Amino acid sequence: MAPAPLPRRLLLGPGPSNVHPRVREAMAQPLVGHLDPAFLGVLEAVQASLRHLFGTHNAMTLPLSGTGSAGMEACFVNLLEPGDTVVIGVAGVFGERMNEVAARAGARVTRVEAVPGTPLEDAAMAEAIARVRPRAVALVHAETSTGVLQPVEGIAAAAREAGALVVLDCVTSLGGLPLALDDWGVDAAYSGTQKCLSVPPGLAPASFSERAIERVRTRDTPVQSWYLDLGLLAGYYGEQRVYHHTAPISAILGLAEGLRLVEEEGMEIRAKRHLESAKALVEGVLPLGFTPLVEEAHRLPMLTSLRLPDALIRSGEAALRHRLLERYGIEIGAGLGALAGRIWRIGLMGENARLTNVEALLIALRRELR
Amino acid sequence: MAPAPLPRRLLLGPGPSNVHPRVREAMAQPLVGHLDPAFLGVLEAVQASLRHLFGTHNAMTLPLSGTGSAGMEACFVNLLEPGDTVVIGVAGVFGERMNEVAARAGARVTRVEAVPGTPLEDAAMAEAIARVRPRAVALVHAETSTGVLQPVEGIAAAAREAGALVVLDCVTSLGGLPLALDDWGVDAAYSGTQKCLSVPPGLAPASFSERAIERVRTRDTPVQSWYLDLGLLAGYYGEQRVYHHTAPISAILGLAEGLRLVEEEGMEIRAKRHLESAKALVEGVLPLGFTPLVEEAHRLPMLTSLRLPDALIRSGEAALRHRLLERYGIEIGAGLGALAGRIWRIGLMGENARLTNVEALLIALRRELR
Repeated sequence: MAPAPLPRRLLLGPGPSNVHPRVREAMAQPLVGHLDPAFLGVLEAVQASLRHLFGTHNAMTLPLSGTGSAGMEACFVNLLEPGDTVVIGVAGVFGERMNEVAARAGARVTRVEAVPGTPLEDAAMAEAIARVRPRAVALVHAETSTGVLQPVEGIAAAAREAGALVVLDCVTSLGGLPLALDDWGVDAAYSGTQKCLSVPPGLAPASFSERAIERVRTRDTPVQSWYLDLGLLAGYYGEQRVYHHTAPISAILGLAEGLRLVEEEGMEIRAKRHLESAKALVEGVLPLGFTPLVEEAHRLPMLTSLRLPDALIRSGEAALRHRLLERYGIEIGAGLGALAGRIWRIGLMGENARLTNVEALLIALRRELR
Repeated sequence: MAPAPLPRRLLLGPGPSNVHPRVREAMAQPLVGHLDPAFLGVLEAVQASLRHLFGTHNAMTLPLSGTGSAGMEACFVNLLEPGDTVVIGVAGVFGERMNEVAARAGARVTRVEAVPGTPLEDAAMAEAIARVRPRAVALVHAETSTGVLQPVEGIAAAAREAGALVVLDCVTSLGGLPLALDDWGVDAAYSGTQKCLSVPPGLAPASFSERAIERVRTRDTPVQSWYLDLGLLAGYYGEQRVYHHTAPISAILGLAEGLRLVEEEGMEIRAKRHLESAKALVEGVLPLGFTPLVEEAHRLPMLTSLRLPDALIRSGEAALRHRLLERYGIEIGAGLGALAGRIWRIGLMGENARLTNVEALLIALRRELR
């Protein structure tokens, strides 16, 4: 018996976002082999396009075969050995996750915390970096748990000056904000496909500088993950194109089309679209009693965190989220960690960063809150 | 500019295999969220169906968010701690990979080797198990590098008797051979989607017994991989359904449909179809000078390794493989490791295990070799 068709959803949470029909068609193409010259051509185009979007010339730029969290893990397990020191900026759940992942790689972690809802301060990071002189410094560009945009250049410069490698989480920023890894001095960056690229989750676009690769080459101990070992992955994602593991072919075909859509639109126009949508959202929800968690200068364009009206906190916000999903087909995100029950996270990411989607949400909210 | 359409291929290598149109359509459905009740319903059906195919009641049966190799890594990093002992049966490239992965988890590995092209011997494994009394014993059910089917029950019984956990690689067997993890006494098993399930690569169906879960629960050290930590994954893949990482939604929708196709056909008929196809292949290639590497009793039904005729070895087999791909759209597999250049690996997996595909290959070979 055929299963019930899935309901249509407007995905306005912290990811995934809705996927363009061209991407869905691309994933549904008949399969070709992972060593087929025709597929290797697609892979090459994907790698070139990711370089462009990341703002880098790094040869080792590739879609890792896991979700964004696998991308995070790949960075830490490759660059760190047991006993290495790392300074990690913690401004939310994903900075916290970095700590956990780095500790599991055997690293000695120095945490620098931000006041929730604000970015890390350059001075606090620079102080820790100067004191620890760590192997690596890690931070999150777009903290999806709070909606804060983190300035990168100052911290990266301090890290470079101390001889540290710079790791940047770009899960929510890639495809929504212009990135410039090379100019910023970032050595390892990772992202996901299901945010501003509007491709289904499953791959982690990532990029590693020559300094990062050199670090992997000169390790004393093997990378603890065989699956994510950059030295081994270079066999397939470099010029040789030899088998390491079977690449997720259909997902990469989808990513190729998603990247083509980004390039057709142009990153400048796309970034502007994200900004305009976020502005319209904030303007629209203010009269309903929601207020932005983050001050305007540090607000992410693709993810807006909103403090809930007191009445909604008291009555329980979960019920309203469920009504939005059931009655209107609109998914929005709850708060994570300490912010659970107190904020919502509204994503206007990639394909979804459009005024019509803002209006759809506002209509539903006005109706439910009146 | 739209990219050139991909060529049509008949995928008769060691995986991936061709994907049924219903699976491709399922993957191309508009996206829903990973916490959407509608998606969680699909996930539940996938987990139930995987239990059925694995032959287990294990609650912790799930599609891991990586390819088969990530499934291998998940087993070793969860069950082993640094200093733990493990006995690994090495009968080909994938047993060899197990060694590498276990060593990177800090385990002390005892290797037991098989003569290439034959299965591991129960007695040799039992001797090592009795001597080492390891934490875990690992072996490959269907060794894709040689085409050998490994009997499991004797080795698993010896392992259980010594109090060891049993790890089984089912990458190439799941969906092509009946599995019975519970009856065999297997504690941790993993597979891939791109072999006999005929679903694109990207997920690792896996299953863990209560004993395995208890082992993870009582570890002294955290699992070195955050991404593959079963204790954390249980939050999403167990009853709570809370966020750990964003599941590869579209890939799971495809897997759901692939599993439905398996259940509609019935595993008994499906296994018979694999057997018949492999028999027809061997009969067809014998007159062309190919001989099976593996004796009939130990031959895999879904993957046949063929010794090449001497003339073909001398003239270079790679050129003929390329001609098969370019002129006929047929992909077959080369030998790996020590067998490179000396054997071919022909996969008749999942949807592809059909006499018409055997005939298509034979026609092409006869034409090229005449």
